Amino acid sequence: MRRAGQPPAFRAVGDGSKLSTATELYPEELQLATRNKGMPLEALRYPITPTGLHYLLVHYDIPAVDAPAWELTVAGQVNNALRLSLDDIQRRPKASVTVTMECAGNGRSLLSPRPISQPWVVEAIGTAEWAGTPLRGILEEAGLTARAVEILFTGLDLGVEGGVVQNYQRCLSLEEATRDDVLLAYEMNGQPLEPQHGYPLRLVAPGWYGMANVKWLDRIEAIETPFDGYQMNAYRYAQSNDDEGERLRFMKVRALMIPPGIPDFLTRTRLVEPGPVTLKGRAWAGRTAVSRVELSTDAGATWSDARLGEQVAPSAWREWSCQWKAEPGSYTLCARATDAQGKVQPLEQPWNVKGMGNNMVQRIEVVVA
Amino acid sequence: MRRAGQPPAFRAVGDGSKLSTATELYPEELQLATRNKGMPLEALRYPITPTGLHYLLVHYDIPAVDAPAWELTVAGQVNNALRLSLDDIQRRPKASVTVTMECAGNGRSLLSPRPISQPWVVEAIGTAEWAGTPLRGILEEAGLTARAVEILFTGLDLGVEGGVVQNYQRCLSLEEATRDDVLLAYEMNGQPLEPQHGYPLRLVAPGWYGMANVKWLDRIEAIETPFDGYQMNAYRYAQSNDDEGERLRFMKVRALMIPPGIPDFLTRTRLVEPGPVTLKGRAWAGRTAVSRVELSTDAGATWSDARLGEQVAPSAWREWSCQWKAEPGSYTLCARATDAQGKVQPLEQPWNVKGMGNNMVQRIEVVVA
Repeated sequence: MRRAGQPPAFRAVGDGSKLSTATELYPEELQLATRNKGMPLEALRYPITPTGLHYLLVHYDIPAVDAPAWELTVAGQVNNALRLSLDDIQRRPKASVTVTMECAGNGRSLLSPRPISQPWVVEAIGTAEWAGTPLRGILEEAGLTARAVEILFTGLDLGVEGGVVQNYQRCLSLEEATRDDVLLAYEMNGQPLEPQHGYPLRLVAPGWYGMANVKWLDRIEAIETPFDGYQMNAYRYAQSNDDEGERLRFMKVRALMIPPGIPDFLTRTRLVEPGPVTLKGRAWAGRTAVSRVELSTDAGATWSDARLGEQVAPSAWREWSCQWKAEPGSYTLCARATDAQGKVQPLEQPWNVKGMGNNMVQRIEVVVA
Repeated sequence: MRRAGQPPAFRAVGDGSKLSTATELYPEELQLATRNKGMPLEALRYPITPTGLHYLLVHYDIPAVDAPAWELTVAGQVNNALRLSLDDIQRRPKASVTVTMECAGNGRSLLSPRPISQPWVVEAIGTAEWAGTPLRGILEEAGLTARAVEILFTGLDLGVEGGVVQNYQRCLSLEEATRDDVLLAYEMNGQPLEPQHGYPLRLVAPGWYGMANVKWLDRIEAIETPFDGYQMNAYRYAQSNDDEGERLRFMKVRALMIPPGIPDFLTRTRLVEPGPVTLKGRAWAGRTAVSRVELSTDAGATWSDARLGEQVAPSAWREWSCQWKAEPGSYTLCARATDAQGKVQPLEQPWNVKGMGNNMVQRIEVVVA
């Protein structure tokens, strides 16, 4: 890698002649992309994502919450309805959990045709240490009645979606809601939640895609009939508008690589010096384990095994690394993970209407020079 | 605003039939939009932007800096070259400054034809409290020689841009570099810098567009001939590729409004209840003052004066507010600021090659129902 002289390989990386074919995008999608936040992929180097680098998807507006006046309501099919201040919640037993969280729509812009919504590439990911009180303790205190079948979580965030005015709402089954590691979290990475991450209190449900982790909690309600609200139906693997499709639950297996070398500003094509390169990244698999990560330097034609490293925490991503002897030329690097159930990331993603649950292998264009 | 029944106005906000005309966008631009971060406009409510909500533009990768091994070099046309550890710098006099900072490319995607780069809409803004040591003290300790004409700042961030391998570099004149409020900052909002904001040390030059505030400082050099490097020429008001154009310096006057009411998820069109509405926002004007903010509810045909409120700090934005009696119908709200020199935000932005220094008035689509 030389700083002067500008040999042809440098120009191939950086002169803009390698731009992909332009696609049609609605200005409204671009507006979503500039307000929602991806994690720059070099931040895969951090076991815990710095707060300001964690991905963020906010459906409506970040609500303005007056924390001293705020209370959490616990109601519905309970024997003792509760109204809890933030102080009340912080006096309860404190637990923490380190969680890799991914947006259900991650990868959406890579689908063809591209579903119209937040146009993620592959960076809607992050890992944080959340602290709060276990939800189970609160539910035990409220005392679920025999008629309770699900727990419904309502956020303070209010907006219009699909023509329906709504607060953001999602439910969990009793089994999921009462797991040890499900928290009502008031801290992220050792600090009070920043407003955009759900201040003053949010749900953290390890293993689930992001949509289950309801932010800005207003109300927790034990309900006697399964909840079928807007957000339960928005997050489905539907093949057409007439297909109901299965609901999304846990994050699928995925590996991401720290892009090696240095980037071109515009194309993000990487320039790598010839010689030995350690390719590194992280992989995760929702409620199961990552059992294998493979690397390809030829766009997926051939694969070799990466070394699996430390898992940051039970619900967090796992390191992987692989040696590569980089020789001059152009390469498409890919990483592909397999989970403990044998599920492998696809090279071509099966399409669905909403662009959900995409875990297609990442491709990184590299010029070695 | 009703929750049920879904009258026609709600559908007009939320059914997607109001999408704008799609435009061509390169996937590479989208990739930039998902890694760089805008400030969701409701965050205008905070006088100081929470760290994770502050806008962020990173040309190359966020570098991995080993802070204990890191040293700042102060060299060039100085009598005493310095190498300073973070501890050395933190033992020096500490000062803080609250600064509104905007990306020079803010608003770029609104230009037509659209210059190809980071495709901001209007949200590349934020205000932070930076703390560190005044640069002037460091320069005095190093002792500038009579041959020094500019101060050159080199970041650790390395990449390719325009076919040129480079560390990010910008210069300031001696006059600008030795102002009271120019800091070598190691804290943002009372905490050590997060990696993406320049950890362990960055330059903060109040009033300048973001590009002058070099992050991840490696080297500060007093130079004897004016610096003409890549980034000095990238940030210009050029009318064509043959036009050199004036270099960008200070942020132009601009007002932004907190979008009133509630948003549609996809279009961000706002739904507002009929009745009195307080429209609020913030305005700034680089090195000069905001003297006036006006509001239009008819896409700029007629204007009325807003009330100017508190200026958060000398180099930070100023509050404004305006009462509006919202009656059922559709509106395009605009806010327009004037600076102390009489410069007014344009309704239509003069175009330039790089899409720099856009301060066109913001437009917010609102349905009152």
